[in-house]
Formats: sequence, structure tokens, C-alpha cells
Amino acid sequence: MTAAIIDGKAFAEELRARVADAVPGFAAAAGRAPGLAVVLVGEDPASSVYVRSKGKATTAAGMLSLEHRLPASATENELLEVVRLLNADPQVDGILVQLPLPAHIDEAAVIAAIDPAKDVDGFHVVNAGKLAVGDRSGMVPCTPLGCLMLLKEQRGDLSGLDAVVIGRSNIVGKPMAQLLLAESCTVTIAHSRTRALSDVVRRADIVVAAVGRPEMVKGSWLREGAVVIDVGINRVAGAEPGKTRLVGDVDFADAMGHVGAITPVPGGVGPMTIAVLLRNTLVAAHLRQGLPVPEGI
Amino acid sequence: MTAAIIDGKAFAEELRARVADAVPGFAAAAGRAPGLAVVLVGEDPASSVYVRSKGKATTAAGMLSLEHRLPASATENELLEVVRLLNADPQVDGILVQLPLPAHIDEAAVIAAIDPAKDVDGFHVVNAGKLAVGDRSGMVPCTPLGCLMLLKEQRGDLSGLDAVVIGRSNIVGKPMAQLLLAESCTVTIAHSRTRALSDVVRRADIVVAAVGRPEMVKGSWLREGAVVIDVGINRVAGAEPGKTRLVGDVDFADAMGHVGAITPVPGGVGPMTIAVLLRNTLVAAHLRQGLPVPEGI
Ligand SMILES: NC(=O)c1ccc[n+]([C@@H]2O[C@H](COP(=O)([O-])OP(=O)(O)OC[C@H]3O[C@@H](n4cnc5c(N)ncnc54)[C@H](OP(=O)(O)O)[C@@H]3O)[C@@H](O)[C@H]2O)c1
Ligand SMILES: NC(=O)c1ccc[n+]([C@@H]2O[C@H](COP(=O)([O-])OP(=O)(O)OC[C@H]3O[C@@H](n4cnc5c(N)ncnc54)[C@H](OP(=O)(O)O)[C@@H]3O)[C@@H](O)[C@H]2O)c1
Repeated sequence: MTAAIIDGKAFAEELRARVADAVPGFAAAAGRAPGLAVVLVGEDPASSVYVRSKGKATTAAGMLSLEHRLPASATENELLEVVRLLNADPQVDGILVQLPLPAHIDEAAVIAAIDPAKDVDGFHVVNAGKLAVGDRSGMVPCTPLGCLMLLKEQRGDLSGLDAVVIGRSNIVGKPMAQLLLAESCTVTIAHSRTRALSDVVRRADIVVAAVGRPEMVKGSWLREGAVVIDVGINRVAGAEPGKTRLVGDVDFADAMGHVGAITPVPGGVGPMTIAVLLRNTLVAAHLRQGLPVPEGI
Repeated sequence: MTAAIIDGKAFAEELRARVADAVPGFAAAAGRAPGLAVVLVGEDPASSVYVRSKGKATTAAGMLSLEHRLPASATENELLEVVRLLNADPQVDGILVQLPLPAHIDEAAVIAAIDPAKDVDGFHVVNAGKLAVGDRSGMVPCTPLGCLMLLKEQRGDLSGLDAVVIGRSNIVGKPMAQLLLAESCTVTIAHSRTRALSDVVRRADIVVAAVGRPEMVKGSWLREGAVVIDVGINRVAGAEPGKTRLVGDVDFADAMGHVGAITPVPGGVGPMTIAVLLRNTLVAAHLRQGLPVPEGI
């Protein structure tokens, strides 16, 4: 059996195009483009790259991109003041504070300060609560929502399927489990304390791996025909000395002989995250203006 | 093998005694007793009984009990005004609006109006979010927290155990799953769309049934030695004509031959709910006064 490779890159491009197509309609109704503000504290190179690519994707979709950069020495109060200004700024629909923050700043306090209606990362406790109770007016974290979109694109209706999520972080594993439950999967959530993980995974029609352990999930762990979403991004030594390469949490080559479909790393879940961020910003903009959210977004 | 019967009634009495023991210390520090306000709209007989027994239990624990009764014709705005007054009342630490509300009142809007710090039912979206993200400053719904207490009393450390929760309501199933995950169980959540439910249940070291279907879970579904928490309260025809009796979601007599321990209905989970309500009120009172929450509560 040959597994289908789920092309997250192509799907993300389509989503970005759908978002871009909806921007002129919003702008005509609201008299302004949707706006996304990204806040970066310090000069972490990886974070800088993320922030730059988010900014480029935002303007490419026809939206307003604001970047706020603070020095690594910025105090928590200085950062909170920036968040307050962005909360009050009517042209800003989405606020994203790039994580991780320097150790002297309390991440939870900063996230709590963001207006939940502008929390396009979906990390605010009000948005976590809305997801938990099934209130669809909330913002959903980008990476798990992107995974769900890929799953629905691949499998259609997920109702009644057995899903296993490996990982229980607040940004991936837990919201992923909530989303799959809302789709009426029977959901199991596994983590580092799970016993006989391979047996747990073997029951699943759908496996989402969000662990951060290179190629941990083996082909023999996977049920024949399962759909596998690999969230992991792990840098490992490459074939040539001194070179590195990216791998997921699933042993891709090994899994290919077992599964029905799988996301590659890179090119699977990764590209979805920014696309969903733009989608969340567009949704937030419509909700804030009291406009109906466009279909198919 | 004989199963242990988990005596929820006795455990609930112990918890109520521990709460009552902590009240004088709070009163000495705060200059007042903890206060619980219960709001009832209409004259539903079952709701009236609940409200009365909550009031009696509150005063029996040495706390202040306030009862607000509104006619069934009360408008949503009238109810919201009562909630606002209770939010502002410094002697009120806990506010419980008895559900269900009359059909013309939006339950979600009323729950959203309660100060989350006084939401001793734990139904506010902020408290659902805190439970989801692992922020322990929130209020946890009474029934699932009571179930967890019984489980820990019975099994001690739950880490690594396989738990299955049947039911995904916002007041029992979902918060129960969150609590078990926080105890590091591998958690599966099942519901009406789950396929092969008996197989799913058979894997579990811990089963929590919160379905509302009399004696649905059979002994043969249960792993040898499993611990079973039966949340269901179902009224069925009794042995004598015209008489009724209460049964759980688990076929108790059938289960006894298989399980390690099980809660009976009545006398299992039922009595825990009010005891935890008092516990939540005491905790809310301490948090609101900036006092450390007593140990062992
Ligand atoms: N855009 C994207 O594609 C994107 C976005 C976010 C994250 N990621 C990637 O996704 C992965 C997970 O991210 P995260 O933020 O969720 O990570 P995280 O916060 O470190 O959480 C990892 C989870 O994996 C569990 N775990 C660790 N070792 C395990 C083992 N041996 N068996 C089973 N479970 C184990 C942990 O369990 P405990 O809770 O018991 O410790 C934890 O719940 C990382 O590789 C990250 O780079 C990608
Ligand atoms: N103090 C207490 O002891 C206490 C407190 C609260 C509730 N209860 C009792 O606990 C029970 C559940 O209460 P609730 O408020 O959570 O009920 P609920 O809101 O009606 O939820 C019932 C859940 O059971 C699921 N379900 C229904 N039929 C099923 C089937 N055949 N197989 C598997 N799952 C099925 C439903 O699935 P879907 O989501 O797919 O519909 C739903 O998630 C009731 O008997 C209630 O009286 C007791």
C-alpha cells in the first residue's frame, strides 16, 4: 500500500489565497484592511525569522502588518503598555506576542493582558475556555486548527473515528484533543506518563504527534490505513558532517508502509500555522466589526 | 473477587466536616463567615429541593447562606441584576444560579455575568479555560472534582493509569477528562458517537460514567479490578407497581463481579456534589480575602 502524502504546503497556500480573496470585501465594508500586530522582545534569531515571515505573509494577503520590537532589556510593564496600546488601537484586529519571552517577563501575565477578541494565537484563558465549552466565538490556536483542517480535507467527516493525540501542551496537544472531540472523534490523549504508548497509538484511525522527539513513532505502532499528522519539528544531524536536517516526531519512511496518509516534515503542518494565523486575523476583524465571517475560511 | 464499595456518603461527610473545621479560622482572619448565595428562578420542585438542601448544608458548615428566589416570570435582565448585586456584595464568596433556568432566559449569558472568582459551580468560561490550561487559581465544577477526590482516596496516585470518561458534557464529562489528564492519566473521552464502546471501556483502569442511561455499562465491559465512578442518576420503575428507584449508568450488581471498586447509586457521587460546593465556597472565600487556602481541603 502506498500512503498519501498530505501536502500541507499546497493546502496552506490555498488557505492564504482564500483569505486574501476575502480581504477586499472586508475592506469595502469596514473602510480599512484587517490588521495584525506582532510584538517581538529581544533579538532571538529564530523568533526574528518567524516575525519577519509573519509580517511578509500578512502584507501579501493584503492586510496591514504592524511590528513592535522591544529590546531584550524591556520590562514586563513596558511590554504590557505596548499590549494595552494595541488593545485600544481600532486598526489592530490581531495581536501576537512572539514566544518565548525573556525569562524576567511573566508570559502568562502578558497573554492575560491581550484583549481576547484580538488574541489570534488563541492562548488567552477566555479562548481556551470557549474552546473547552464549545463556544465557537473564540479564537482557536493556529497549529491544532491547521491540523484539523488537513484532517478534514483528507478524511471528510471525522465523527466516530478513534483519534490519539500524543502530547498535552496548551498550544498543541490539549486544543487538538478538544477540536477532535468537537468533531465527535473518540479522543485519547497520551503523554510522557502513558504506558504502552505503541498499543495506544495502534488503536487509532487518526494520530496527531506533538511531542518534540525525533522519529519516535515507528511504522509498527500505526494501524493499517491510519491518517497521521506529524506536528513535531526536530533538528537532527544530517547525512553530511556539520549539516543538519528537520524531522518530525514520526519515522516517516517507516510509517509510509503502514499508514493511509501522512504529513511530511517539512512541508506538512509547518506551513499551516501562518496560514491559520492570517485566517484567525481575518475572522477576528469580521467579528470585531460585527460583519459575518466569510464562508469556507 | 469482591469489589469494594466506595462510600461517597461517608467521604462527603468527612469533607463537610473538614470544611466546617476551617470556617472559624477564616472567620477570625476575615471578620466574617464565608457566604454562599443560591439563586432560584421559578418553582421547579426538584430544583427547590436542591436549593433547600444546599442552604441547610451551608449553614450546617457555619457559613452564611443567602437564598434569592425569583418568580418563573422573571426576565433575564432581572436575573442579571441580582447577579450584579451579588457580585458586588462583599459578604458573598460564592454565587450559584440553580439550573435549568426557564426557557426565556439565556443560561450562558447568566453564567457569563457571574464574577469568575465567585463562580463556585466552575461553569464560567474563564474557569473552564483555567482548568484547560492548568491554572489552579480557577473554580472546578463540583461533580467531577468530587469524583476525582473519590478516585484519589481509592487509588492514590493516578499517574499512568488508563482512564475512560463516558460522556462529554460541560458540567461533568469534559472537566472530568481535564482533571484526570492533570493527574497524568492517559485519558479517553467517549460519547454517543463512540464505536465499540464496550471495547473502549474494557481497556480502562478507571471508568467514569456520566451518560444518563440506566445501567448501560455491563459487567462484561469492565476490566478485572477497574475502579468505576458512576455519576448517572436515573429514575426507573421499582419492584412494586407505582414505585420508582434510582439507578446509575452502570449495572451495579453485574459490575460487582468484575471491578475492584465502584460507587453505588445512591450514596456514591451524589453526596459529593454539595460537599464540594461548600469546599469551593471556602476556597473562594480564602482567595478573595488573600488568605492561604487551608491544607487538605
Ligand atoms: N507550526 C508548527 O508546526 C509547530 C507549532 C508548535 C509546535 N511544534 C512542534 O511540535 C512539537 C511539540 O510542541 P509542544 O509545544 O506541544 O511541545 P511541549 O510543550 O514540549 O509538549 C510535548 C508533549 O509531549 C509529551 N512527551 C514528551 N516525551 C514523550 C514521550 N516519550 N512519549 C509520549 N509523550 C511524550 C509531553 O508529555 P508531558 O506533558 O507528560 O511532559 C508533552 O505533553 C515540537 O517538536 C514543536 O517544535 C510545531
Ligand atoms: N451530583 C451528581 O451526582 C450529578 C451531577 C450532574 C449529573 N449527574 C447525572 O450524570 C448523568 C450525566 O449528566 P450530564 O449532565 O453530563 O448529561 P448530558 O449533558 O446529557 O450528557 C450525556 C453524555 O452522555 C453521552 N451519551 C448519551 N448516550 C450515550 C451512549 N449510548 N453511549 C455513550 N455515550 C452516550 C452523550 O453523548 P453526546 O455528547 O454525543 O450526545 C453526552 O456527552 C445524568 O444521569 C445526570 O443525572 C449527576
